Parts: sequence; structure tokens; C-alpha cells
Amino acid sequence: MTKQECVNQLLANRSETPLSTVKSFAPANIALCKYWGKRDTELNLPVTSSLSMALGTLGSHCNLSFCEDHDQVILNEAPLPSDSPFVTRLSDYLDLFRKQPDQYYRVETINTIPTAAGFASSASGFASIALALNTLHGWDLSDRECSILARLGSGSACRSLWQGFVEWHVGHQDDGLDSFAEPIPTPWTDLQIGLLVLEAGKKPISSRDAMLRTVKTSQLYKAWPQKVDTDIQTLRTAIGKHDFDQLGATAESNALTMHATMMGAWPPVVYWLPETVVAMHKVWQCRREGLSVYLTMDAGPNVKLLFQSQDEAQLLAEFPNLLIAR
Amino acid sequence: MTKQECVNQLLANRSETPLSTVKSFAPANIALCKYWGKRDTELNLPVTSSLSMALGTLGSHCNLSFCEDHDQVILNEAPLPSDSPFVTRLSDYLDLFRKQPDQYYRVETINTIPTAAGFASSASGFASIALALNTLHGWDLSDRECSILARLGSGSACRSLWQGFVEWHVGHQDDGLDSFAEPIPTPWTDLQIGLLVLEAGKKPISSRDAMLRTVKTSQLYKAWPQKVDTDIQTLRTAIGKHDFDQLGATAESNALTMHATMMGAWPPVVYWLPETVVAMHKVWQCRREGLSVYLTMDAGPNVKLLFQSQDEAQLLAEFPNLLIAR
Repeated sequence: MTKQECVNQLLANRSETPLSTVKSFAPANIALCKYWGKRDTELNLPVTSSLSMALGTLGSHCNLSFCEDHDQVILNEAPLPSDSPFVTRLSDYLDLFRKQPDQYYRVETINTIPTAAGFASSASGFASIALALNTLHGWDLSDRECSILARLGSGSACRSLWQGFVEWHVGHQDDGLDSFAEPIPTPWTDLQIGLLVLEAGKKPISSRDAMLRTVKTSQLYKAWPQKVDTDIQTLRTAIGKHDFDQLGATAESNALTMHATMMGAWPPVVYWLPETVVAMHKVWQCRREGLSVYLTMDAGPNVKLLFQSQDEAQLLAEFPNLLIAR
Repeated sequence: MTKQECVNQLLANRSETPLSTVKSFAPANIALCKYWGKRDTELNLPVTSSLSMALGTLGSHCNLSFCEDHDQVILNEAPLPSDSPFVTRLSDYLDLFRKQPDQYYRVETINTIPTAAGFASSASGFASIALALNTLHGWDLSDRECSILARLGSGSACRSLWQGFVEWHVGHQDDGLDSFAEPIPTPWTDLQIGLLVLEAGKKPISSRDAMLRTVKTSQLYKAWPQKVDTDIQTLRTAIGKHDFDQLGATAESNALTMHATMMGAWPPVVYWLPETVVAMHKVWQCRREGLSVYLTMDAGPNVKLLFQSQDEAQLLAEFPNLLIAR
């Protein structure tokens, strides 16, 4: 099934009551149990479920309106050239929603997460655009349906529609209409996440390509779905009990296992830089000294820290450039 | 079955024609397909077969004789205190072979491999002692039987009895008498291996403990035996054809996959240091620039390079502190 067929199915019998301009916000999210591997690359359908927490005010603001002649994309107040890879990708996505071929969009995005420092903004970016499209066109879609629309832009975007914990259900249908995220209604205000800004450079391989290569060539990937089954259940339990050590250990193990599956790929995928390894060993040293802190990492060299509010001052003393999500 | 029972079985009906002092040498070896995981910790029986290449003159020289009162161990010309962990381990091993409880040994070992730089010497060390014990006692054991004796001292020691390529057959018997190494009679003089001396410090966890923890806690370990099956077959083919890229790629992937299984353990085992990651990325950069070089690593932070004689000068220009095995 194509993205267009999926969108047509979702928007069938929806009336349009378009507005002229709308605003939206979507938080970035960090997976505690990672999305790693697609069973359908066209529809961004995953091999497994995944579970994330949102980053509060760190995310993407979107102003969306219709415009003429061609799509206009303004990122962090700078208009992007229409032949830039991001505009091409975004216009391909917007193609799915135009009522007429000459209906164009003006997309103004402000990322409050430091994208230049290598933190993924595509999840919050596409989530904010999906939310804005729904309001702009007046489709009146449910959150679940918006989650599916966001997923068609970028897989993990389907988890960026809510604050707090979110689970993306793997789904089983070919059309992906049962593969959407929903919030886990358990608040946990003492749980903190902080970003260590290590590297602003371009990644040697995109996470999309790393994922494809791992699924195709890494013999370790065979063990991944079972690892996720275990971890996601443990995370649900830890969230229910507010058991920080259980949550932290599971998230750390899950992230390292994801990176491990990449190292088993050919050619090997190693996002780690010297600074990554320094940060990892420092986290473990802190833990040996009694500080309750765990790490997670996405498909890149940066390290994220999980900790509790009570330890914030100590964490900042150890990691002065920690950017804490609020 | 205990080690002693296994030794008794091997030495049954062997006459003793002891000498007063003997010398032996065993080369160190680097596995191209790693030994990772024991099915029997008492007898050092492995979960899978493994395949190594020897390091020429880098290894262990042993002078062995009988002595009185207590075992004497002299390592690199320095007598070791009788309560040092190495002497304890060695005396436990020698206990297996004493004809009377008051028969003691004087073991003088010279390692030509830089042990202080974190390169494993236990394989060549125990292999040289097993060979020397056979000659000293005049048992007249076969190489295969000596390989089994060496294995009882340290698993990978069973591969250190020969130069060139060696395969350790996994075996299936409980007594381990079918788990021994033998040489692969295919010379390959152009194939070179070099050691990058990165770190002289003590490892945070012994390879023995890392192996146990990985087998016990890493869900990725489930995929390891199948990885070995694939790799060992590919290596045999590559050796037969003298296909360097096939051999190098397989060895590199095997080593990274072994490290990957450790990262999936809990607590995670990450031997990599910043210098390790620098060396790895440098190897990959060299390869992208057309230099045919591959890496392998054992359970530690050091990196070993596989290359061909024709590229030696270029390799030394890129890695000036490369210690090439001759």
C-alpha cells in the first residue's frame, strides 16, 4: 500500500473546513525502548512496538498556512532553498494532502531542541506538521489518526503528539491503520531527562540507512524483537511502580543493545565518538559512586541521561553542559 | 567431570621418564573467529568452535624443572610472590600433574608479547607450560592431547601449540576429550597481523567474567553461535583461497559482534576506551581511502590490525606504534 492510499483511506468522508493559518507544537521524544527496524519502509511500519518519554518544551513549533506558487519552508527563521533535502522531503509529504496540485503550504518551524547539535528534530517536526495540517484543513481527526499521519512523515513522529510516556503499538495490518501511538496515562514528575551535547557534526550514516543495513546484514538483529518484548513489559511495570532503577537500567540496556545490533552489521555502524565513550564511562563511574543515573542513546553519538529531580544539582556538577528537558 | 579426572584419563597407562629440566615455546594467538562463551566452566569447554592465527615469535618461552619445598614462578626474570593471583592459578594447574604432593615445579616464563600493554599472555603461557610438562615428565603425549592439557589451564591456550592458522573444535563429549585444536595446514606468508598498543592499565573486568556475564544476561548472545557457524565457514574458505578481504571482513565483523554481545549484557561490558574508538574510525578511514586493512579485538580495549605484506610500509606510516608479529 502507498502512503497516498493510506491517507485517502484516513481522510475518506472527511469534510474540509479550512482555516487560513494555524499554530501547533509537538514535543521531541526519546525512546526508552527504541524503534529499530521497519517491516514496511513505505509506510514506516515498525518491526516492534516502542516506548518513549516526551521532552516537555523541547520540540517543534509550527505555523502553517496555504500559499501560492510553491511550498515555502522557514526553519528557525531562515527560509530554506526549495531544492534542499529537507524541503524536498517535506514537499513529498505535503503532496499527500493537497486538494489541488497547485495548493501549496507555507511551513514555518521553530525547533527549541538544538538540531545543530545532532538531536533529532524530525519526530517533533513531522508531529507538529501533522497536527497543524489537521487543524488547517479542519479534518477533525482523532489523536490516533494524527499519530498515523505523523508516522507517514517520520516513524517516531507518531510518538511526538503527547507529553509524558507514549507507547507506539506495532500493529499487524498491511495498511498500518493499527500502528499508532498513545499516551500512557501515568505522570512521573520526578523523572528527568537531560541531553549531553557532544557533537554538532553530520552523522556518517543516516539513522534510516543504519536501520536498513542492520536489519539486512546484522545477525544480532534476530535477537532484537525478543529484547524489545522483554524491555517494553519491564518499562510498563517500572512506570506503574515509579521504579527508577528498573526504568533506567532497562532503557540503558535497550539503547546499548540497539547500538550493539549496528556493530554487528556490515559494514559496521559505529556512531560512537571518543567523547561518547568518555561520557558513558563517566555515567558508570557516577553510578558506582552511588549516583542513580542511566544513559540512553539514539542512532547518533550523543548521550542522554535519565535521573531523578532530587539528583539534579549533583548531575549538573558532574555534567555542566547537560541540557535538561523541562 | 573435574579437571583431575580428565587429566587422569589422559595420563592413564603413560609411563614417566622424567628429565631434570626442559624448555618450550608457544606462540600467542589471535582469534579470527572468537572463543566466547563456555558450556563447561570447569573444563573450559566452549559453546562454539573458534579459529585463530599465531603470532610467530611473540609468545611465551618456558623453562620447567622440578624443585623442592614449593612452586617457584619467575615471570620475565622476576620471581613472583607465592600468594600472587597468577602463582595461585598456576599452582592449582600444576596440582593436576604432581606424582607426589611434595613434587614442586620451577616455572620460568619469558613473554615476548608485551603483557604489560594488555595483550593476553595466558594462552601462550599455559600452552608453553603444557608442552614443557609433557617433555619434563616424558609422557610422550600427542599434540592433540597437549592441546587438551593446555585448554585445562586457559581455554584459548589449546590453540597456541602451532604457528599459522589453528581451529579449536568445539567437541560434544562431557569429558572434553574431543574439544582440542589442530592446525589448518595452509600457509599464508603475506598475511600480517599487528598490535596497536593503546592501554597498559588493568581491565575493569576480566575476560572470563565478561564472558560469564554475557552468556548469562545478554539477549544478543543467543545469536552468537549462529554467527560463529557462518564466520568459521567463511574463514575456512577465505584461507583456502587466500582471499584477504573476505578473511579481514569476517574477522572484523566477528570481533565487533563479540563486543556487541557484551554491550547487551547487564551491567553492560564496554572495554572500549576513547583511544579504541579513535583507532577504529582511523582503520575505517584508511579503508575508505583504499588501504586494505581490517581490525580485530579481544576482550579488552586494544585493537589488532590485519593486512598484507605489500601494505606494511603504508600501515606503519598511518600507525607508527604498530607492533607487527613476525
